[in-house]
Amino acid sequence: MRGLHTPNLPEKIVDAIAKVVGDPPVALHEPHFSCKESDYLEECLTSTFVSSVGSYVDRFEAELANYTGAKYAIALVNGTSALHISLKLADVGLGDEVLIPALTFIATANAVSYCGAIPILIDADPKTLGVDPAALREYLNENSVIRDKHCINKLTGNHIKAIIPMHTFGHPVKMDELISVASDYHLTIIEDAAESLGSYYCGKHTGTFGLLGTLSFNGNKTITTGGGGAILTNNKNLAKRAKHLTTTAKLPHRWEYIHDEVGYNYRMPNINAALGCAQLEQVDKFIKNKRNLYSKYQSAFANLNGVSIFSEPEDCMSNYWLQTLILTNEDKILRDEILSLTNNKGYMTRPVWSLLHKLEPYKNCQHMELSVAESLSSRLINLPSNV
Amino acid sequence: MRGLHTPNLPEKIVDAIAKVVGDPPVALHEPHFSCKESDYLEECLTSTFVSSVGSYVDRFEAELANYTGAKYAIALVNGTSALHISLKLADVGLGDEVLIPALTFIATANAVSYCGAIPILIDADPKTLGVDPAALREYLNENSVIRDKHCINKLTGNHIKAIIPMHTFGHPVKMDELISVASDYHLTIIEDAAESLGSYYCGKHTGTFGLLGTLSFNGNKTITTGGGGAILTNNKNLAKRAKHLTTTAKLPHRWEYIHDEVGYNYRMPNINAALGCAQLEQVDKFIKNKRNLYSKYQSAFANLNGVSIFSEPEDCMSNYWLQTLILTNEDKILRDEILSLTNNKGYMTRPVWSLLHKLEPYKNCQHMELSVAESLSSRLINLPSNV
Repeated sequence: MRGLHTPNLPEKIVDAIAKVVGDPPVALHEPHFSCKESDYLEECLTSTFVSSVGSYVDRFEAELANYTGAKYAIALVNGTSALHISLKLADVGLGDEVLIPALTFIATANAVSYCGAIPILIDADPKTLGVDPAALREYLNENSVIRDKHCINKLTGNHIKAIIPMHTFGHPVKMDELISVASDYHLTIIEDAAESLGSYYCGKHTGTFGLLGTLSFNGNKTITTGGGGAILTNNKNLAKRAKHLTTTAKLPHRWEYIHDEVGYNYRMPNINAALGCAQLEQVDKFIKNKRNLYSKYQSAFANLNGVSIFSEPEDCMSNYWLQTLILTNEDKILRDEILSLTNNKGYMTRPVWSLLHKLEPYKNCQHMELSVAESLSSRLINLPSNV
Repeated sequence: MRGLHTPNLPEKIVDAIAKVVGDPPVALHEPHFSCKESDYLEECLTSTFVSSVGSYVDRFEAELANYTGAKYAIALVNGTSALHISLKLADVGLGDEVLIPALTFIATANAVSYCGAIPILIDADPKTLGVDPAALREYLNENSVIRDKHCINKLTGNHIKAIIPMHTFGHPVKMDELISVASDYHLTIIEDAAESLGSYYCGKHTGTFGLLGTLSFNGNKTITTGGGGAILTNNKNLAKRAKHLTTTAKLPHRWEYIHDEVGYNYRMPNINAALGCAQLEQVDKFIKNKRNLYSKYQSAFANLNGVSIFSEPEDCMSNYWLQTLILTNEDKILRDEILSLTNNKGYMTRPVWSLLHKLEPYKNCQHMELSVAESLSSRLINLPSNV
């Protein structure tokens, strides 16, 4: 039986979207540029500093630190590289294990793989869409043992070293509870805040709770540098090591080329940082618009049974990067029909990512019961979030 | 005894440089921008396509293929990522061994490390500054054995899978001889052409001889995209795999997120490709100016005993990316004094990279007798090459 709650639900969803965002085509998310982007790019060309050294990189890093409240920000080529280096800085290496959400973009897992480490997948919390700290505690209680302040996986004997909470669509994970679990099990927290620039948990910016946090400035994010990312940390040594590791581990010298470890070429070019500086000046406006859009969707869908618009978790201020529609269990069979109809009508929508254990490279990962993540993945649809 | 050939050699070198490049300060290399760079960046902003999808990426790839004569070019975030993915495409993995020059930038070795593979270091040819195919053949003859068309390292028992010739400062390696050795020992050739855009060996562009070739468009290269690189190949399947692996291995689908292997976030953003398109339009002019600069240095240093200006190898046309001064054995003790004086006077010069086996992460690498590389590294100085 189709559309139990509401007859013609897909068509009514299209109507509600149209009411909010107007005539099609409407993208899922598009970047917006003011005149400053042009000016800064032009300045960049004039200075000839377009590459890995330049004043916009320094400025972007300083402004990111200021905006997020992190002591240090290190600008990189993308969010994936930021996760990769953060894991290295947390000493995650061959055969280590890292707890990550089952419900996340594949980059979270890939960064773990780059280190030769192995992901363990955690279920989601329906109130945040992120990892569920209570379920995690229960899982670790049953499946791990603490030896010499190391969390050891009973099944594999490997060291479970870190946890990467990801703030889904800009909605913060329950960080207080997560910090408590991480503390009890001696896990390093690395926050994947790729989607949550401008999102706060209890008044504190996401990405600043863990030892390290990461951001993304891909073209589909709240602000963009073309491609880009950043590491956030309050630890001076880690910040210094992050810069060193991402600039080929070259030691400072007037002319000699001495590198003291295997490094990476991950620094953000100055021309991308120039774009970032102009974008960051507008971030408050972007987020205000995203939050207004949420209110409009909330109103437009208020009387539509069978669906709800996801709201920011308690004690949080979300950036509402992507607006999220949730179908009821009864109506979830309509998911693909809704995706098809909305996209055919020119309103770009998408489902959530395939759960990691459904993907070929991670199908054999150890994981807890993933019933909430499974349920969410069958019921979530991101709506046009362009503002 | 100092300056055997010429009294006051460091001072005379400064005079000769000044004669060629004029008043200081003069950089080692600076990018040059015309009005087109501005126009294309502006177009990029107007289109809102600044990120990993966009028409400038497609155009840059097509124009790179056209310029180099490769069938396919894949634009990436930098030259290091291009080497990393090329090695993956050549099936280089954990415990494999890869022959690389001892005299190269550390990125060549790092890319091998990223794959879990191990570099073996090769000596240099004084006529090309790149790997010496004759010395390589002799080394492989003594130190390897062929089993089932696999080159096996007698010492380690590991599979020596590939060789990465690097075209130093834009001067091509003796590719005919190298191809013959690679063929006899069943080695895959991946060319590190990071420095040699616009350099030809026997009329064929560097980077198009091996199964795969790589380019760099860092700010210090002949043309720049801020940060960037590319893979060149004539193999359609490899080109397709390169795009797939560098875009998170996502399968094409209207909305689903299905990734079939551990992929990377290595694609060049459109805004960087926009810069690249404008730069590529000027590459012939840049190289003409670089070659003219070589002639001027050649004249200015002609009467200075104790030094020579390095000239393109036989049958080659080099881009002369960086101009290279070579000291005699007698005068090499003056190297640091020359570096110091020239830099103090505002003429940016630099020595060649530290040889890889002198660097902490590669000090235990297996290597042949490296007497030529050792000698060259003590005698080479790059001169201001800004044009």
